[in-house]
Amino acid sequence: MRKVALGKLFFPLRPTMIFLTRFASLRSSGSKLFGAVAQSAGDRLEGERLRVLVDMDGVLADFEGGFLQKYKDTYPKEPFIELKDRRGFWVSTQYGKLKPDLCEKAISIWESKNFFIELDPLPGAVEAVKEMANLKNTDVFICTSPIKKYDYCPYEKYAWVEKHLGKEFLELMILTRDKTMVSGNLLIDDKLDISGVDPYPKWEHVLFSTCHNIHEQLRPPKRRLHSWADDWKALLDSKRK
Amino acid sequence: MRKVALGKLFFPLRPTMIFLTRFASLRSSGSKLFGAVAQSAGDRLEGERLRVLVDMDGVLADFEGGFLQKYKDTYPKEPFIELKDRRGFWVSTQYGKLKPDLCEKAISIWESKNFFIELDPLPGAVEAVKEMANLKNTDVFICTSPIKKYDYCPYEKYAWVEKHLGKEFLELMILTRDKTMVSGNLLIDDKLDISGVDPYPKWEHVLFSTCHNIHEQLRPPKRRLHSWADDWKALLDSKRK
Repeated sequence: MRKVALGKLFFPLRPTMIFLTRFASLRSSGSKLFGAVAQSAGDRLEGERLRVLVDMDGVLADFEGGFLQKYKDTYPKEPFIELKDRRGFWVSTQYGKLKPDLCEKAISIWESKNFFIELDPLPGAVEAVKEMANLKNTDVFICTSPIKKYDYCPYEKYAWVEKHLGKEFLELMILTRDKTMVSGNLLIDDKLDISGVDPYPKWEHVLFSTCHNIHEQLRPPKRRLHSWADDWKALLDSKRK
Repeated sequence: MRKVALGKLFFPLRPTMIFLTRFASLRSSGSKLFGAVAQSAGDRLEGERLRVLVDMDGVLADFEGGFLQKYKDTYPKEPFIELKDRRGFWVSTQYGKLKPDLCEKAISIWESKNFFIELDPLPGAVEAVKEMANLKNTDVFICTSPIKKYDYCPYEKYAWVEKHLGKEFLELMILTRDKTMVSGNLLIDDKLDISGVDPYPKWEHVLFSTCHNIHEQLRPPKRRLHSWADDWKALLDSKRK
């Protein structure tokens, strides 16, 4: 793995900055060298580097598949919605329409211990993001909104990233309920409408196709990434100067 | 508490968006109404609203005091550094200079369970941030960098915020190791040098004074907030148009 993008934030080589972070472990890192290079060339690189924000649930991790499996295991006698029939971002809303108490039952699934850590990666996601982080002049961040109940979700999101992408990707995680404040060139996300305090986010939101949004008609110039088998490199290149 | 800033991100009133979030609890919220108002007035508010990012450790929570107490309790026979003698952001670096094995011992303190949740709020911090979030045309976010070891820290940071600031502030948390990517007008932070992928962050970094940075000479036009008894409202007003 190329270390420039991953290392430069926290591993500058300048002796005045000495160690990793106030909280850092003691392990040394090869990325220190790359960090120094990237930092000293900061001005030159600015405007040339592409910053991609990648959502987690529904983009890297199979939230819908994981939910349906655990829901059926937990409530075997309740009706369920096949993935091909899922509509709209809010799982709990569609289940609530099926039968009012199913809204709360749906929520209980992702509020349970081990829900997030046990999600499978979506096909090709891990390979794509690792390759993306290795691309020249490309910074990748994982930009994810934790659920309100914080007992397990934030911890398991970090654990998932370490398990599937590796320790170095932990540095690239951003947990926020408002993604409009995070600056980047591209946001790859399966949520149709992304709003927040900033009415004009810096990124172009590219909709990652999934069962609940595949039937949505997008208003031009909004684009899709149909899967990780789709040409995500061409998408990134379309944003480069 | 005023609900505009807290509610508008996730509680739009439009019937098409129906529920809170995919992950939301079922409780209804008075902030829905305010949310709708703020959203429909998005354009008008833009440029008028001030966005303040407030760091946690050393700004809201007494990291240095909490560390020293637990360090002395855990290693009663080891030398320690009085707060008045603390220099530099990295606690572990200064302890490592005192005696090499103390670097690792220092790290063990904040990597322990209950370190973050048991930190006391800094004097006036809770009152100031609550008041700030109630100010007209002001959005406040808590922007914090978790430690590398994620077993307890992210969970305890959310728990701390709920305990001391209240549930509604959970919506305003941003966990990131790179704060340069988070856009805002002001970043109140006790770390002297804040760097990351963006060499030109949108915010003005105002240094929050604490034992380890009080002796630092700031290069103009860099400013300080000396404590929460300092005139933080004037600081905010200096950024308004």
